[in-house]
Amino acid sequence: MEIKIERTKNPKAKPDQKNLGFGHIFTDHMFVMNYTEGKGWHDARVVPFENLSLSPAAMVFHYGQEMFEGLKAYKGEDGRARLFRPEMNAKRTNASNERLCIPKIPEEDFVEAVRTVVSVDKDWIPTEKGTSLYIRPFIIATDAFLGVAPSKTYMFIIILSPSGAYYESGLAPVGIWIEDEYVRAVRGGMGFAKTGGNYAASLIAQVKAHDDGYSQVLWLDGVERKYIEEVGAMNIFFKIDGKIVTPMLNGSILPGITRNSVITLCKEWGYEVEERKVSVDELLEAQKSGKLEECFGTGTAAVISPVGKLRYKDDVMVISGGEIGPVSARIYDEITGIQGGTKEDKLGWITFVD
Amino acid sequence: MEIKIERTKNPKAKPDQKNLGFGHIFTDHMFVMNYTEGKGWHDARVVPFENLSLSPAAMVFHYGQEMFEGLKAYKGEDGRARLFRPEMNAKRTNASNERLCIPKIPEEDFVEAVRTVVSVDKDWIPTEKGTSLYIRPFIIATDAFLGVAPSKTYMFIIILSPSGAYYESGLAPVGIWIEDEYVRAVRGGMGFAKTGGNYAASLIAQVKAHDDGYSQVLWLDGVERKYIEEVGAMNIFFKIDGKIVTPMLNGSILPGITRNSVITLCKEWGYEVEERKVSVDELLEAQKSGKLEECFGTGTAAVISPVGKLRYKDDVMVISGGEIGPVSARIYDEITGIQGGTKEDKLGWITFVD
Ligand SMILES: Cc1ncc(COP(=O)(O)O)c(C=O)c1O
Ligand SMILES: Cc1ncc(COP(=O)(O)O)c(C=O)c1O
Repeated sequence: MEIKIERTKNPKAKPDQKNLGFGHIFTDHMFVMNYTEGKGWHDARVVPFENLSLSPAAMVFHYGQEMFEGLKAYKGEDGRARLFRPEMNAKRTNASNERLCIPKIPEEDFVEAVRTVVSVDKDWIPTEKGTSLYIRPFIIATDAFLGVAPSKTYMFIIILSPSGAYYESGLAPVGIWIEDEYVRAVRGGMGFAKTGGNYAASLIAQVKAHDDGYSQVLWLDGVERKYIEEVGAMNIFFKIDGKIVTPMLNGSILPGITRNSVITLCKEWGYEVEERKVSVDELLEAQKSGKLEECFGTGTAAVISPVGKLRYKDDVMVISGGEIGPVSARIYDEITGIQGGTKEDKLGWITFVD
Repeated sequence: MEIKIERTKNPKAKPDQKNLGFGHIFTDHMFVMNYTEGKGWHDARVVPFENLSLSPAAMVFHYGQEMFEGLKAYKGEDGRARLFRPEMNAKRTNASNERLCIPKIPEEDFVEAVRTVVSVDKDWIPTEKGTSLYIRPFIIATDAFLGVAPSKTYMFIIILSPSGAYYESGLAPVGIWIEDEYVRAVRGGMGFAKTGGNYAASLIAQVKAHDDGYSQVLWLDGVERKYIEEVGAMNIFFKIDGKIVTPMLNGSILPGITRNSVITLCKEWGYEVEERKVSVDELLEAQKSGKLEECFGTGTAAVISPVGKLRYKDDVMVISGGEIGPVSARIYDEITGIQGGTKEDKLGWITFVD
């Protein structure tokens, strides 16, 4: 794939690394590639970050034919920029695309596009501890047509956003709300795909949870409403009676890349890992008998998010005394160590940008 | 609500009314209104139809926070332009908005916006038999922010598209594919809302059905996969043993305005109308015993779409000999008559544009 590069003539001032927050500052450039039926993906280019000009009839505004990915670039103490398993994002992109009738992108091209645009804006990768450059690849349907059908044209775009440390001072456990009214996704639906509709469906429960003082929502399955699925933007793990347990991939949850990495590491470390159905009842019982030893979310944003409190209807389970458990801490140190280049990359998870 | 009107300086040529098709020709103007947190909806205006300029980080591209509506303006033989029950679209807009955490729009403002923009472009309403001006109101989330949360800014836009006669020569019965693998929506989800994600989820089954020679998909419930829900963009009705039967509104299907009108008319005409669960098994049995007398879809696009053939796995049910049933025909005549001004509007369903 040939990528044309047009550099900005008006570079922006870099932001203060102490106040990056998440998702609202964007770098100088973006990657863009178009798809046209009969022609395939074409015109791969890095251009100055700028507004998109689209017909108000563009399908993405009406029928939600869109997908996205999320990964990060980390600048190690050695000054080198690293990506964590970007080929997994490329694979997941195509899984999402297939469900949404969006044409696939060759995996090498996806990774090449990410590397190229990050490399052009590499001075934007922050270096303060815990910071990173968040990378948001996404695809939108652009046909100006109101019939409900797969679009014949698309744009694949990658934007970059320097983002602050997720944890200001150590891993702070969060409180999580197990949602019993609204449903995010169901088997046969598109829960396993990273697409707008799944997030649009989740907003109302998130607002409810926030109003009640919980920071995230944990979803139950849409059929029986009793099996644990995943958190708003994280997969979920439990340590029950010494074993690491996480909901199996059943078509309605996102196959998280952090999830996959955590399973791999835990197995290496000799833990028994079970991917299976986990019911709320099982959790309530494990909690009562003192066997619910740890609970943590996994995702690109925070890597590991220890859960100190789980609410289900009138039950509030406090886990590991509301503190961080040892397995959570060990995984966090290992993965962030690999990402930052201070721990050995034994499994070949790192792709260097240059 | 004050609506500013800026007329185009470059009016487009009107299209050939014999070849309008659907959803790809747009008029000279559009309605736009913005929402800003703390300020509410503001700056209602009619402007020349033009591209939208949005940040690539605009939430609508990532998290599908978007909703739409669909209705039509009809020009009667008396030359007057009519809307059919636009206040129902206003109500449904707010039901969708509530589920999607989008701020509501006062119902009068919604109807006023529709009337105003249609009135500015009233010369675009085609007059050939069966043609109409399709009206597409929609709302998109515009915050340039990658956090998953309700947007703080939105655009409400109405675009207009002259559209051709749905039926070239009389009501042609369609073949419909009952989908047994993919699911469109589930209770607790957002099936009752008119939002992009529901349509994005439906594309894959539609492609499958088309490949098999069926024009539309009929969805089953996401929990038991045995109860009839609705068609891709229509509600569904059956005449079983003399009664008119349609799936009840259960939270996972769209409360169609045509559906509501059909129920009202059938009751007026003395039919027993049942809104309840309808299983595929019931249909298969009714068909075997000769009691499945008619089947038709209802929606703004076609008003009534007779179903001649229903496929479920290996069973193909041929209904009323693949012809149009008398109830379908009567409803079609009545509703299109009211819309065109040739039948009396006894129920106050018509709003005149001027
Ligand atoms: C719904 C959902 N589940 C899980 C995850 C975790 O996936 P990953 O580990 O690939 O970031 C995410 C996203 O980041 C998500 O949006
Ligand atoms: C999913 C779905 N069901 C039903 C309908 C029919 O609704 P209405 O009669 O309001 O057009 C539509 C839309 O037009 C639809 O998109």
